[in-house]
Amino acid sequence: MARVAIVMGSQSDMPYMEETIKALDGLGLDHEVHVMSAHRTPDLVQRFATGAAERGVKVVIAAAGGAAHLPGVIASWTTLPVIGVPLPTTDLKGFDALLAIVQMPAGVPVATVAVGKAGARNAAFLAAQIIGLSEPQFADAYRAYREEQAAKIREGVTGF
Amino acid sequence: MARVAIVMGSQSDMPYMEETIKALDGLGLDHEVHVMSAHRTPDLVQRFATGAAERGVKVVIAAAGGAAHLPGVIASWTTLPVIGVPLPTTDLKGFDALLAIVQMPAGVPVATVAVGKAGARNAAFLAAQIIGLSEPQFADAYRAYREEQAAKIREGVTGF
Amino acid sequence: MARVAIVMGSQSDMPYMEETIKALDGLGLDHEVHVMSAHRTPDLVQRFATGAAERGVKVVIAAAGGAAHLPGVIASWTTLPVIGVPLPTTDLKGFDALLAIVQMPAGVPVATVAVGKAGARNAAFLAAQIIGLSEPQFADAYRAYREEQAAKIREGVTGF
Amino acid sequence: MARVAIVMGSQSDMPYMEETIKALDGLGLDHEVHVMSAHRTPDLVQRFATGAAERGVKVVIAAAGGAAHLPGVIASWTTLPVIGVPLPTTDLKGFDALLAIVQMPAGVPVATVAVGKAGARNAAFLAAQIIGLSEPQFADAYRAYREEQAAKIREGVTGF
Amino acid sequence: MARVAIVMGSQSDMPYMEETIKALDGLGLDHEVHVMSAHRTPDLVQRFATGAAERGVKVVIAAAGGAAHLPGVIASWTTLPVIGVPLPTTDLKGFDALLAIVQMPAGVPVATVAVGKAGARNAAFLAAQIIGLSEPQFADAYRAYREEQAAKIREGVTGF
Amino acid sequence: MARVAIVMGSQSDMPYMEETIKALDGLGLDHEVHVMSAHRTPDLVQRFATGAAERGVKVVIAAAGGAAHLPGVIASWTTLPVIGVPLPTTDLKGFDALLAIVQMPAGVPVATVAVGKAGARNAAFLAAQIIGLSEPQFADAYRAYREEQAAKIREGVTGF
Amino acid sequence: MARVAIVMGSQSDMPYMEETIKALDGLGLDHEVHVMSAHRTPDLVQRFATGAAERGVKVVIAAAGGAAHLPGVIASWTTLPVIGVPLPTTDLKGFDALLAIVQMPAGVPVATVAVGKAGARNAAFLAAQIIGLSEPQFADAYRAYREEQAAKIREGVTGF
Amino acid sequence: MARVAIVMGSQSDMPYMEETIKALDGLGLDHEVHVMSAHRTPDLVQRFATGAAERGVKVVIAAAGGAAHLPGVIASWTTLPVIGVPLPTTDLKGFDALLAIVQMPAGVPVATVAVGKAGARNAAFLAAQIIGLSEPQFADAYRAYREEQAAKIREGVTGF
Repeated sequence: MARVAIVMGSQSDMPYMEETIKALDGLGLDHEVHVMSAHRTPDLVQRFATGAAERGVKVVIAAAGGAAHLPGVIASWTTLPVIGVPLPTTDLKGFDALLAIVQMPAGVPVATVAVGKAGARNAAFLAAQIIGLSEPQFADAYRAYREEQAAKIREGVTGF
Repeated sequence: MARVAIVMGSQSDMPYMEETIKALDGLGLDHEVHVMSAHRTPDLVQRFATGAAERGVKVVIAAAGGAAHLPGVIASWTTLPVIGVPLPTTDLKGFDALLAIVQMPAGVPVATVAVGKAGARNAAFLAAQIIGLSEPQFADAYRAYREEQAAKIREGVTGF
Repeated sequence: MARVAIVMGSQSDMPYMEETIKALDGLGLDHEVHVMSAHRTPDLVQRFATGAAERGVKVVIAAAGGAAHLPGVIASWTTLPVIGVPLPTTDLKGFDALLAIVQMPAGVPVATVAVGKAGARNAAFLAAQIIGLSEPQFADAYRAYREEQAAKIREGVTGF
Repeated sequence: MARVAIVMGSQSDMPYMEETIKALDGLGLDHEVHVMSAHRTPDLVQRFATGAAERGVKVVIAAAGGAAHLPGVIASWTTLPVIGVPLPTTDLKGFDALLAIVQMPAGVPVATVAVGKAGARNAAFLAAQIIGLSEPQFADAYRAYREEQAAKIREGVTGF
Repeated sequence: MARVAIVMGSQSDMPYMEETIKALDGLGLDHEVHVMSAHRTPDLVQRFATGAAERGVKVVIAAAGGAAHLPGVIASWTTLPVIGVPLPTTDLKGFDALLAIVQMPAGVPVATVAVGKAGARNAAFLAAQIIGLSEPQFADAYRAYREEQAAKIREGVTGF
Repeated sequence: MARVAIVMGSQSDMPYMEETIKALDGLGLDHEVHVMSAHRTPDLVQRFATGAAERGVKVVIAAAGGAAHLPGVIASWTTLPVIGVPLPTTDLKGFDALLAIVQMPAGVPVATVAVGKAGARNAAFLAAQIIGLSEPQFADAYRAYREEQAAKIREGVTGF
Repeated sequence: MARVAIVMGSQSDMPYMEETIKALDGLGLDHEVHVMSAHRTPDLVQRFATGAAERGVKVVIAAAGGAAHLPGVIASWTTLPVIGVPLPTTDLKGFDALLAIVQMPAGVPVATVAVGKAGARNAAFLAAQIIGLSEPQFADAYRAYREEQAAKIREGVTGF
Repeated sequence: MARVAIVMGSQSDMPYMEETIKALDGLGLDHEVHVMSAHRTPDLVQRFATGAAERGVKVVIAAAGGAAHLPGVIASWTTLPVIGVPLPTTDLKGFDALLAIVQMPAGVPVATVAVGKAGARNAAFLAAQIIGLSEPQFADAYRAYREEQAAKIREGVTGF
């Protein structure tokens, strides 16, 4: 069992999702990683999603490109929060994935983050914000990260 | 049992899909109509899609707007041909639905037609083309429709 | 104090955000509503955002159109989860708001939902999913809503 | 005579259409390949398209970039099913080809698949789905491919 | 015989093309008007286009919406100059028609004008510019129109 | 004096416009080439454009990227036909140039061709079509080119 | 002589530019208004722009739709600051005007504001900011406006 | 104290903003450069922006990519003129940054320039135009630059 489950549609999405993994590691947030396709293995996705809550997963992070259905399909099988990461894996540069993820119908939201690596990292931070509401150590870890980020910028700034 | 199954995500899609129904009626192609949501009732969609071939369905026509997952989700559960109709039901005018339907990953195609009513009608004609390969009366009916269309245009043209 | 704070950039956004309010009411999730502009009253936004966590707010829902900065600006002043709702209030139909909200840089996520009313409602459901992780009655309320939605669709479906 | 005819607008489209050829080969589906331009050799396209059904072609796969007219022009001269593959051969990255192929008027559909290589492969699978309705060995071959795809993914998944 | 042939894909395009007709009338440029569809009556379009030069047509103005093939198909059958007018007749607002007309491959140009009524009028003026190179009365008529336009604006301007 | 004047906004546009020059050379159509900017040297453009007709220029081909004003500015100073070539010289990939050239207001058309090299070549062919109306040798040269293009394709096609 | 010159391409743009006029009036900033077209009356625009600085104009506000050249053409004839307002007057909803105005080449900027009425009003405020650098009463008037805006919002906000 | 303050969201934006710096240097316009993030260090941005006028800054140039809030956030904290430079730092190629910067609501303008390097240079020229209204040496420097640019082009132009 892990608090965060990362699901991606294809092994080739790993370079993006390593950003998520690194960020979760930095926050001390445990995670499991799955490669499964909403279109090729809908039964796997169903089994994963319907069992996730019971297994202790708190937040699902799902990434996909093109007609990116993975986050929405997972959201259809569970009532856990699902974070969707649009990947720029087609000639249309993630624009297709963004619209296919964010424009969910009323009733079944997907919490969508930015296209590509920035979004992949932010999925981890958003998971920490969400889980941090009940387990403050993750909220603290995220806040510490934010302060560290800010501190680095502050060092470089002078003269006003 | 019907040769063509029409599936739409919401009752409010009916004004579009009536175009499909009328066109199928004109071609003498039998059909069944279902309203079910890929996001709200994934189990229904799964049950429908996995059983469709056995029940005698030849072609599925699926219509949806926004992050339009219905055609792709049906295609994930069956190997029957699935025709996807993007509906302009959001502020983004069907542009989102088009990309969410057409950009399917390799392995699981959706035969996508135009956004809105033109696409809804063409879904019926495409179904007739497909089924007409083995049941020529539908190919004949479509050809007759095409000739009639052309004849009407020809009547109005003179002078060259 | 309320668990959910709804913030919108202008009184004219209310027809959209009433969808959020209705959905939160249906889930029994308490909320407070503020109209304040990231551009016209940055100090108010700052004061609101920096004090929100301490006042007991768990999730902020922020809606804006055009160069929609409100969700991102709130996210910059707090480490609470922020849900962003892009509103179609300009000639560019929410396309501008979507990109201005979702494309946040690594480190400071905004959980973005669909453009317009569907997104406004989903912001409420996403808030329930998030808060429901620690207060199960809201997860239950959302699950009940999902089941009710599904039941309504199931009633209308026959024949397979 | 071949069941599937692949037509592309230019020899330079071959790297894309080799994906189609490989996929058809994998499915045991016979095919013929033609390079002809809707704009430079409309008479060739007309002769090809009007004679295709009689020669035994079941499905035409047509690929083009830019103001991609080839699929639609073939569809105008035959009532066989035509699958259109939008190619990203211009600075506009296939966005132009997608709209020029999918937005056909009511009466004359083109079954459109994804932009680029994913679409090129899916054109083959869609052809197998269509022809498989009357010649089950191709439906079986496609189903076997889908199962093989799924099995590969399943092997890599553990832990839930 | 007329110097300018106007061709539109559907009778419903007439409100746009009346702008062309009025502008041609104002320039004293004779014209013929045809309604024929590239997709529904490709043979008519072929017959029209291949015979146009011989019948004395100098310039063809072709208007269409959606996957707007009419101008390009005419251009494929003739070497006369073809002016393409993209019409905003789909949910995608003419954006599809613009790309489907303007992005012609090297070798077969279509002279594209603006989407909708402005383009419809400009098609007439462009025809006058083109034909005016050999028949100066039309260049003169266009120049007179331009001067008149300018004069009207000049009347209203004072103070600098 | 030359029949065709090619004008580009910057020396860096030359790789594109060499396509135009080569195509004009192939057609035997004489041309002059100018580099001048609508924004940096409006007086030069004005002097060029207002004097072009008198100097014997028949057709102006103008190419530009970004907020591509060169074709429209030339069209504002002359009543000769102006062909506009949108160049993909910005991060927005020619999409900006296309809209900035094609969307001219009623009264002052620019004959727009495709973005980039295909358009650059087609500008030459369109010029030949236009000038060929009064000087048939250029229409003949273009027709010969078209036949040669078609013949090359025909050679490669067999089997139907 | 007036500090601010407002120029629009057509009388039909007035409903937008009245927003500019009202805002300038509110700031006590004197202005002159001209209707002249970059495409139909380039000489007028040239005369206006080249003489503006000498006549005492400090800032030019230019508005246009479609292939919106007016701001850029004025900028080409003067070195005064030019503010460009993209108008949504075509089927492409101001998207064309935005790109045609903002994507100016290095050397000749146009200060671009939002599409439509928000932009029209902001053009006035930007003019006040610019002129206010040397004539503080206009900076004061703008600051007072900002404070008034903020005060109105503050009145409505309570509870945190 | 410097007349122009350049602010960018990240050190990685420097290759773009060096264009601004070089152009300002060429104009003799003094400047200070800051790297600070609207999202990661909102307090720094606030402190910078609220103090800028008093410290003698006349114009702020702010550059950002993605959901580019930096220019708008600075504009919310000061009434100085703010010039926004959209950077193409995401997969969406600056399109997101452009809309996130230019579509500001009525009351708080950002003077937006082109995406990327052309815009970065033009930000400097626009600053010179603005400051040059009260300090003519900068208007003179910009005019000299414009004349030099034009002179270089003129040298290369002959023959009409």
